[in-house]
Amino acid sequence: MVAEIICVGTELLLGQIVNTNAQYLSQKLAELGIDLYFQTTVGDNLIRLKNAIEIASKRADILIFTGGLGPTSDDITREAVCEYFGKRLILDQEILHRIENYFKRIGVKMPEINKKQAYVPEGAIILENKHGTAPGLIIEENNKIAILLPGPPFEMQPMFEEYVIPYLERFSNQKIFSRVLKFVGIGESSIEERLKDLIENQTDPSLALYAKPFEVELRISTKKSSKDLAKDLLDQMESRVRALLGEYIYGVDNQTLEEVIVEMLMQKGLKVSVAESCTGGLICNKITNVPGASNVFDRGFITYSNQAKIKELGVSDQALKNFGAVSHEVAKQMALGALNNSLADIAISTTGIAGPTGATNTKPVGLVYVGIATKNYVDSFEFRFSGDRLKIKESASKAALNVLRRALISY
Amino acid sequence: MVAEIICVGTELLLGQIVNTNAQYLSQKLAELGIDLYFQTTVGDNLIRLKNAIEIASKRADILIFTGGLGPTSDDITREAVCEYFGKRLILDQEILHRIENYFKRIGVKMPEINKKQAYVPEGAIILENKHGTAPGLIIEENNKIAILLPGPPFEMQPMFEEYVIPYLERFSNQKIFSRVLKFVGIGESSIEERLKDLIENQTDPSLALYAKPFEVELRISTKKSSKDLAKDLLDQMESRVRALLGEYIYGVDNQTLEEVIVEMLMQKGLKVSVAESCTGGLICNKITNVPGASNVFDRGFITYSNQAKIKELGVSDQALKNFGAVSHEVAKQMALGALNNSLADIAISTTGIAGPTGATNTKPVGLVYVGIATKNYVDSFEFRFSGDRLKIKESASKAALNVLRRALISY
Repeated sequence: MVAEIICVGTELLLGQIVNTNAQYLSQKLAELGIDLYFQTTVGDNLIRLKNAIEIASKRADILIFTGGLGPTSDDITREAVCEYFGKRLILDQEILHRIENYFKRIGVKMPEINKKQAYVPEGAIILENKHGTAPGLIIEENNKIAILLPGPPFEMQPMFEEYVIPYLERFSNQKIFSRVLKFVGIGESSIEERLKDLIENQTDPSLALYAKPFEVELRISTKKSSKDLAKDLLDQMESRVRALLGEYIYGVDNQTLEEVIVEMLMQKGLKVSVAESCTGGLICNKITNVPGASNVFDRGFITYSNQAKIKELGVSDQALKNFGAVSHEVAKQMALGALNNSLADIAISTTGIAGPTGATNTKPVGLVYVGIATKNYVDSFEFRFSGDRLKIKESASKAALNVLRRALISY
Repeated sequence: MVAEIICVGTELLLGQIVNTNAQYLSQKLAELGIDLYFQTTVGDNLIRLKNAIEIASKRADILIFTGGLGPTSDDITREAVCEYFGKRLILDQEILHRIENYFKRIGVKMPEINKKQAYVPEGAIILENKHGTAPGLIIEENNKIAILLPGPPFEMQPMFEEYVIPYLERFSNQKIFSRVLKFVGIGESSIEERLKDLIENQTDPSLALYAKPFEVELRISTKKSSKDLAKDLLDQMESRVRALLGEYIYGVDNQTLEEVIVEMLMQKGLKVSVAESCTGGLICNKITNVPGASNVFDRGFITYSNQAKIKELGVSDQALKNFGAVSHEVAKQMALGALNNSLADIAISTTGIAGPTGATNTKPVGLVYVGIATKNYVDSFEFRFSGDRLKIKESASKAALNVLRRALISY
């Protein structure tokens, strides 16, 4: 079976929003093992939408629409599909009731125009919308299937996962299963070199690398008829990769570096404090994005000026004069200061040049020192990052979090 | 003239990346006043790409392609377009030379396969690629125009701005000019109510509102033949909006709240310090994202625990016991502490419940207090935000920055 995606909405043709629906649906279809050869985007225009349906019907079996199911006269997907398939729209009392209830729940009287959304093509399968008023619809006719979904992603995605995936699974006997291993502290080309044999000689599961700022993802994918069959294969490949590069892998699938760190701190019953200069609060912000961070994050010192480094962290005048604020020595003193002036068991620090100005002959933009201190030791690391101010802040914050992660492993 | 966008790339059909090229090009075409009725995405497949070209040629005059200009055998856009228009590909020595130079510059020997990128359709207009190896191409044939652009946005966008916009301008005698006014501290519906007459009775320029977390944008747009004609109209409308709601407008077009604040601080020769609890470093991070922030940002205190609030900021035990950490009183004491323990002239603070846990009977998730202190006064404000942890942090940080902005106006 071949699918085609048709996204309906003039706002897409004006570039007012980016089409995340096309990406989401494409990804899901790939996972389901259903082929997709074309995506089409068309405005809120009946003639042009019907033209798109006619073309898509010639080259695909399953037509998936997003958008154009709203209550206004602009919303024409239902009408266009009905006209194409020769179906009548009929009032569905149960849907009307559901829409009225939706408005009751949010404490608003149902506007008369919303009644339009209770008209559905005769014989259609109705997909409940738990996050809005427009129900989804599946129409089967002449060996073609039309699936109509609402445009807002927060309505469309839960509907797709709950109803459309189970519906589509019957059309595919093999799905793509994948697992993402997340690397930090090693570059894409180094990973490629170390995994050369695996990547070149491996067809199932397949391996693909994606580089991000100071982070690389390895996607391991396989097409199988069941989750269990896939799991064994993915487990085996994960073990082989871990045997070669395990120390650089911080997490799997959707885990973030800060989530992994908050979890490690919780498990070990430790608290962290942070002293930031060039990252300017980004590390504290990342850590406090994780729910429950208050159990493990004691405090942060954003010491941008030299005076702040001296007063808040006890960095010595001497060190600032002799080595400069961007130095191994100051990074170490900052980490020690954050440890000693808090209730934390471990502390990290950053000091560097985020740019665009501030570089000297010996200290270029992108030079960053990360410090770490516990009751037993203090250490520091030098990094050289490229990119603009925001990219350097992002890379430096991840480098510091990785220094913390490695220290926690052996704490 | 009608345009159509054809994005080429199997990675788009697999949902591995979101199609930002389609949005970028759509927006630019709208600004140029060139109609766009369809966007098509197709994989790296010669037959299907030729099918897409044939369909697009029937309904558009200008075909804009992105992707498929790379050196590998997967890259087939040049070939497909040449076959459709009956053009031969010929080796262009100047382009070959340019590609060789590109590799010299990055210190790599040119791989043999890159030679393919120096083959161009006979008679094509060549668009230089300053950020990669694939040149862009414009082919004019049979009253149709094909514009071939590279896929990576950082190569495509500069090429479009430098060469394609001037080329396309001849096909449009009216362009869309717009100006965005950015509001903070007032909701979308309140703005709509206050601007009701303007929005309803106004057709040129047109007005459109877009809501973001704790921020609203008003886009004023007009279609005119020259920038000067548009400017007068936009200026007049901006004045009318400012007369009604000027105090809530913090910036224009791409300005961010933190950029406006850093500029105000610079102009007034003032320094700010920040004490954050629930926002956890996000405010410091935003401020330090602005180049030059080190001139006006002294330091930040991320005081997540009560002990940190007491020790770093001098918040009183009494206040924490009597009112709780999330209170007017503690917000004020935090701001005062940040002022008195720094070299700043003005300080702001946040304390609140970002969730998902931490709520009590009287203090729900989303309750946030913002404090502000100068040498002359101290004050605090209560906010109630909705959404998840990240949205509450984002809204609270903008609310605090707006409290700072308003204080700076009259400082």
